[in-house]
Formats: sequence, structure tokens, C-alpha cells
Amino acid sequence: MAVQTVVSNTGISLGPAAALSCRECGERFPLGPVFACEACFGPLEIAYDLPGGDPEALRARIEAGPDNIWRYAPLLPVPADVADKPNLNPGFTKLVRADNLARELGVTGGLYVKDDSGNPTHSFKDRVVAIAVEAARAFGFTTLSCSSTGNLAGAVGAAAARAGLRSCVFIPHDLEQGKVVMAAVYGGDLVGIEGTYDDVNRFCSELIGDPAGEGWGFVNVNLRPYYAEGSKTLAYEICEQLGWRLPDQIVVPIASGSQLTKIDKGLRELIGLGLVEDRPYRIFGAQAEGCSPVSRAFKEGHDVVRPVKPDTIAKSLAIGNPADGPYVLDIARRTGGAVEDVTDEQVVDAIKLLARTEGIFAETAGGVTVGVTRKLIETGALDPSLTTVVLNTGDGLKTLDAVAPTTGPSAIIRPNLDSFREAGLA
Amino acid sequence: MAVQTVVSNTGISLGPAAALSCRECGERFPLGPVFACEACFGPLEIAYDLPGGDPEALRARIEAGPDNIWRYAPLLPVPADVADKPNLNPGFTKLVRADNLARELGVTGGLYVKDDSGNPTHSFKDRVVAIAVEAARAFGFTTLSCSSTGNLAGAVGAAAARAGLRSCVFIPHDLEQGKVVMAAVYGGDLVGIEGTYDDVNRFCSELIGDPAGEGWGFVNVNLRPYYAEGSKTLAYEICEQLGWRLPDQIVVPIASGSQLTKIDKGLRELIGLGLVEDRPYRIFGAQAEGCSPVSRAFKEGHDVVRPVKPDTIAKSLAIGNPADGPYVLDIARRTGGAVEDVTDEQVVDAIKLLARTEGIFAETAGGVTVGVTRKLIETGALDPSLTTVVLNTGDGLKTLDAVAPTTGPSAIIRPNLDSFREAGLA
Repeated sequence: MAVQTVVSNTGISLGPAAALSCRECGERFPLGPVFACEACFGPLEIAYDLPGGDPEALRARIEAGPDNIWRYAPLLPVPADVADKPNLNPGFTKLVRADNLARELGVTGGLYVKDDSGNPTHSFKDRVVAIAVEAARAFGFTTLSCSSTGNLAGAVGAAAARAGLRSCVFIPHDLEQGKVVMAAVYGGDLVGIEGTYDDVNRFCSELIGDPAGEGWGFVNVNLRPYYAEGSKTLAYEICEQLGWRLPDQIVVPIASGSQLTKIDKGLRELIGLGLVEDRPYRIFGAQAEGCSPVSRAFKEGHDVVRPVKPDTIAKSLAIGNPADGPYVLDIARRTGGAVEDVTDEQVVDAIKLLARTEGIFAETAGGVTVGVTRKLIETGALDPSLTTVVLNTGDGLKTLDAVAPTTGPSAIIRPNLDSFREAGLA
Repeated sequence: MAVQTVVSNTGISLGPAAALSCRECGERFPLGPVFACEACFGPLEIAYDLPGGDPEALRARIEAGPDNIWRYAPLLPVPADVADKPNLNPGFTKLVRADNLARELGVTGGLYVKDDSGNPTHSFKDRVVAIAVEAARAFGFTTLSCSSTGNLAGAVGAAAARAGLRSCVFIPHDLEQGKVVMAAVYGGDLVGIEGTYDDVNRFCSELIGDPAGEGWGFVNVNLRPYYAEGSKTLAYEICEQLGWRLPDQIVVPIASGSQLTKIDKGLRELIGLGLVEDRPYRIFGAQAEGCSPVSRAFKEGHDVVRPVKPDTIAKSLAIGNPADGPYVLDIARRTGGAVEDVTDEQVVDAIKLLARTEGIFAETAGGVTVGVTRKLIETGALDPSLTTVVLNTGDGLKTLDAVAPTTGPSAIIRPNLDSFREAGLA
């Protein structure tokens, strides 16, 4: 169960977080660095005592808070004074009204891009890591760690540096140099593992149970219940930025599926607290065809997700056996959404479409959500007359290779007007 | 003169911008796409009718504005309804209290990093381009253009896409592929010029005077007086984020020198408007040794700047003949500041220092300012007991090559605990 008994969870104070609760059997456990249920091995998540009372007062308190995720501290598993501690303060990224893109896609009900490339290390990972940092502090961990294919490693390295924690992150040894540099530049230890990402993961699980891993918080393993909650802030921000209103439709990328389930959780919390009006909303999941186990299960009407071997340029979504896949299927079906996938070529087209219409250069994951949005409109699954929010969870600078082969100069000319005129660009 | 007589400037409404004024002879001209004085060929800048009256009311109006540079619209050459138009809305980036870095540098008076990597295309260029876009709209230009070595091209391409303008930007034909992709992905025309950056610049000046360039706004040529004003917003934001207080010391990178002079202008405006208390402040300029003409002139006590041929990894600062060099010298001397330079090795060290202390991965220009700050403390020119703000104007993702040779994994191991223990990282 990976309970680290060296760490006492007595007196752990993480704001409204009351306990850990099993998503399968409902059994509750005290807050601690645990991630699976002792009774049924189901995944644990945070159960809250959320603030009751007047929604107007809570709304005012949030609006008076800082311009980052800590404005929602009353709804997160973090100490009340979190905003005073050294951390990267991610979040409150732009919700861009995308009228140019809407025209191209035929959306008339209002189209928005939630652009998480504005986070400190330019992906949504900063949100989840920020929460994990606070959990690590609460549990007395001194080293922050993770297994990663690149992006998460950088987010953990940066967050640990700022927080004054040591970091030691694990990656497959054969990553591209650019990703290695991004992960290593923050000065923590970066360890290349001779093996695949699965080997890296397995090794991390081993390390957690070993004395060598004592005092280590693995953000996506033993801190996962806390870490995952960071994605709720996407739901909070979208609603607040829409004027405390639920979007009608929201398109979310699926890697493990955790982000989509937490966005749903966040929306339901806002309804429960009376912060937004209780109206129907639809959640859509987006995958790349080369790693589309959830999309396939959705289309085939299955409740279980059959694992696949990923083969897509959308590497940040390339999880062949997504842990939260079944929950995603539940949510898509319950809300009247869908799960869809697009080819790598459609991903590249969608990256360029978003760039040329809105000036937002998205990571491949953003190409997946924009591409899927277009496809969902074509198939009629998504209603273009309703308010729609599309997530861009990362930055195009990190996946330049995806667009490089098809993106270049319009012309090469000599430095004179004749040569320019010949190029036909005047 | 490059006055484009096809464009009428009658009825041009750019908020508080009253006229263009020559920085050398003071002659005034009506607002228009002009950048040099008809009388003396001196550079033109914007003269304002700034809002008078109660500073408290103005402060409240600004604070109630959007979380981007348009909160300062009453102080900028933009129309009053600028926030409602489609643009990238840069600015209001984080002012990071850098206590870890302060400890390493021995700064006791409060050290802050103004982190402009948080802008939409991850450099301060989004600020200046955003103002140029509004000028382009006001003058009826339909194509946005620039000469660039990469970063500005991306900023212009993105801003034009969002604003619904055509873009056509010019770069040297032999730029690295990564920079070409970043500049081309927004779908505008990107033209490679067979020649150096100087050739590109010369060609653009030719194009402005030619019918082929009719209706074209070159952000850093015929729109330069507007464009340059965008840098004032750095001064506004720093003071507001310090609680409407002037910093005691501020360290600014020098390329053309324009940014530094506009920051000084912005600070003086805030004093004049009563928005901050009138206290002394010192402005320091930072260059890379391989392109340090202003630093050399400062140290040698000259008023003029002798051009150099740049040779440094800090390419975004590599302007060998900085137009605003003499103004920078004036300001550094008037405020009790200095101009200093550091070697490329010190730039790389400083990038890593900032990354491992604060989790901020800066572009080489940020390495220059942090490195110079350290050097100024060592030489005694900068007082570590005073509040100090250091600018990071760009993102490390854009200059990975600078740190790549010296940044890598701590160890490569096999996926087992024995191999991990042997690496000595537990």
C-alpha cells in the first residue's frame, strides 16, 4: 500500500481536505502519502469538508485572492497560508475568446481557449505539481520526485527549486536533448533510466518501498491523490472567467484521464457550493488516433478500456493504459459528451489552425483538442450553438518537431525590391 | 522621412497621445507613421496629454482594469476601447520575490525578478508589438511587418493573426530551424533574405518608401515611436506590483537601449502623476561582453557609443550600434546607476543560478541581467541593502543551445535499486 510509516499524518493540516476516500469502495483513510485503498486496491482521492454558507461571500473571497490557483485555496488540499510560501504560483491563465477560430469552425455560441501555455513552465503540469509540493511539505518530504517523459520533469524541477526542496526525477535515458535540458536546468538530479517509460515507472514504485526512497515524495505516485486535485483549478478558473457560469461544453485531452475526471469534480463542487447555477454541461474527451483506447471504448460502448501501444506525435498524451479511462467513459456518457480521436496529420493541421486564427502556438495536446473539436462539430456530437471551451494544456515550443516539417518561409529572396516583387508577396 | 502620405492622420485617436515630438530638437508633429524629425532627423517619440487630477482616482481606475497592459491604457498611445479589440493582451507578468536568489547574491533589501517569459509568445516583445498593432489599425495599415532575428518575428506573426491583420516578416535566410518554425507557424508570410540582419533592415527601409510597401506597418521602423512605448508598461507594472512604490534599483538589458529609456520615462510619468512617491531610483544597464558598446562607453566616460560587431550567445541583445545608447548613458549617469557587461560563460552560469534558485528558466538576456546584477554587487555599484528589480525579458526554451552543452543527467542507470544506489543519489 506504500504507506510510509516513517511519516506521521497526525496533525496534517491541508485546508479543507478531510480524508482520503476510495473511488471504488468509498472506504476512508486519514490524510497521508498513500494512493491505493487497503480494502480493495482502488485509487484514493481527496474527500473535503468544503466551506458552507453564503456563496456570495465565498465568491468575494475568491475574487479578492491572488491571480493564481491559490485564490481557490478554500477548495484545495493546501494549507490556508499557501500563498505566502515559496512556490511557482501557477494558474489563472487566460481564457481566450476565440472568435476567429469560431468562425472557421462554425461555432456561434461562443468559443474559448483555456490557454495553459501561460503557466510558469508552460504546461498545465505546474498546477498539479504545485499541489503536490504542498503535500510534500505537509508530510515532511525533503525530495520531490517523479517519473516523466519530459514535461513533468521540468515542472517538478522548477517547483522544487523555488520551494527549496531537493528534486530527483527519472526519465527514459534516450529522450531528445531539448527535453533533457529543460528538465535538468533547474539544478536538481535528473536520472536517465536504461529502459522504456514503463520501466521508469516500475523502478519508481520499487524505490518508494525501499529505504533509499525514504523522505521522497513522488508527485505522480505516492502524492498522486493530492497532485491530481490540481486539475480542478481548470474548472474553477473557466467558470469564474465566464462570469461564474458553467460552460455548456468543454473539450479536454485524455492522457491518464485524470484531468478530465477532476474537471468534472471541480464543476460539480462549484454547483454544490452554489457558486454557479446548476445547468447541464457536456464533457468531451480528446485523444490522438495513435493512442485512443478510451475513444475506442466509448465508440464501441464498452465500460472497460483495452490498453494499446502508443504511436503518435502527441507524446504528452501517449498513455496506452489510462488509469482513469473507465471514469472518463462514465463522465462522457453521464453528461451527454463523447470521446473522439484525430490523426497525427489532423493534430498538426489543428495546431496551425489555432496559431493562424488566434496567435496561440499549442503543444500537440492542444492540436488534439482543437482537432477533435472540429471533428465533433462535423459529426454533430458537439453543438456549435452552445458555449464551448477547448483546453490547450501545453506550449508549441516544446513540440516544435511536430510542425517543423511543414512550416517554413514563404520565400527566400535577395535583399532588393525586384527580388521581392518576383516572389509575389507585395 | 518615410512619411506615407497615402495615410491621413486627421482624426487619429490614440488615447492620451497628443503628438510626435523630436527627442533631439523638441519639434512636434501630428501623429502618423513617421519616425524621424523633418527638422533634424532626430528620433521621434510620443508626447502625451496625460490624465491630471486625483492620483487616487487614477490608481483605482488602473486597478479595476484588466490583468494585462491595457489596465494602463490611460497612459499609452492606444484608443480607449483597446481592451475590447482582438489582441494578445500581454503584460501583468509576475514580479517574483526572489528570496533564494537574494541569499546567494547577498541582497538584503528585497530582490525581485520581473519575469516577462509569461507573455503570450514568451518575451517582452509582445508588449511593444501590442501597441504597434493599435497604431497599425489607427493608420489603416493592413499588413504588419518587421525585420527580425527570430523572436520579434514570432511576436508579430502571433499578434497579427489574432488581430486579423496580414503579416509579412523578414529574417536572415540562415536562421536556425527552430526560430523559423516559431516565426512561421502563425501562418503569415515569412521571407528569408539572403544576407545579414543589417541587409534585412536596409531592405525593409527601402520597402517602406516603395509602392510595394504601401499599407504596411513595420513595427520597428515606421511604427517605432508607438511600438517603443510598450516598454513603459514594465515600469508601471513593477511599481504597481511593489504596492505603488518605485524600486530603488532596476537592472535592464540593453539591445537598442530603447527598453531602458522607456522604463525611465514610465517611472518619471508615475512620479509626475503622483501615482508613486518621488524618491531617487537607479537604473542599471546590462550587456554581454561580446556586444558591449554602451558598457564600454560608460566605463570610459564617453557620451557617444562606438559601434561593435556582436559576438555573443545573447543574440536577442546583439545590436552592435544601439540607437538609444547615448540616452542610456545619460540615464545611467543621471540616476546614479551604471552599465556593466558579463562574459558568455557568466551568462550561462547566471541562467542556471536563476533556474536552480527560483525555478525560472530565462533566455540568454535574463542570464545577462542576473549575471550583471551579481557583478554590480561585487564591484559595489549596486547596493544590496536596497530594493532591486532584475528583468528577465525572455524564455529559456528559445535559447536552449546556450545551456545544452553543460546541462544533462546526473546519472544514467539501469532500472533497479542496486544501480541507483551505485549512482550515489539516494
